[in-house]
Amino acid sequence: MKTKAELIPECPVAATVHLIGNKWKLLIIRNLLDRPWRFNELHKSLDGISQKVLTDSLRQMEADGLITRTVYAEVPPRVEYALSELGETLRPVLDAMKAWGENYKRKME
Amino acid sequence: MKTKAELIPECPVAATVHLIGNKWKLLIIRNLLDRPWRFNELHKSLDGISQKVLTDSLRQMEADGLITRTVYAEVPPRVEYALSELGETLRPVLDAMKAWGENYKRKME
Repeated sequence: MKTKAELIPECPVAATVHLIGNKWKLLIIRNLLDRPWRFNELHKSLDGISQKVLTDSLRQMEADGLITRTVYAEVPPRVEYALSELGETLRPVLDAMKAWGENYKRKME
Repeated sequence: MKTKAELIPECPVAATVHLIGNKWKLLIIRNLLDRPWRFNELHKSLDGISQKVLTDSLRQMEADGLITRTVYAEVPPRVEYALSELGETLRPVLDAMKAWGENYKRKME
């Protein structure tokens, strides 16, 4: 079996795509760049995502070191997801996507 | 039925994700930023993609104005895919993904 590091593609673009190249992960990162979010908040905000896909996406991103999961000892317990230091370094990627989307929408108007 | 423009999300990041937020489209764009590619070349280069998914991805990207499809009257006919002017504007997005992937791989070493 390959180790996790061995699964990362050689090409740096492909490596990034391997880690965050899907719709839901990108939208989760977009939200977390703003502030920490709770699971139910994320679920409500991401129109059409199932609980299972959201759970799986968050677990993968936590395992890949992109986000942190913090449980606060309250009743009921509060669970918050936030970007890790590594996850924060994705900001320029999302900024470029934002700028491109703004330009695209202007052109379509 | 909604028009294509109405399907584009309000949020600019989500608009970009809607148009290119999946593994294969991102890797196709990565290739086309370098030069035009033929279908079979793309198919060989993208490890694990099916002919159907490659065809569908290229058709969607052509319909969204991101790529062009040129048929050269040769025997057998040569079909080349290239980025449109709009598609070329995705370069900063892929550059940011490349820079992030390089940084990520350095940290993992």
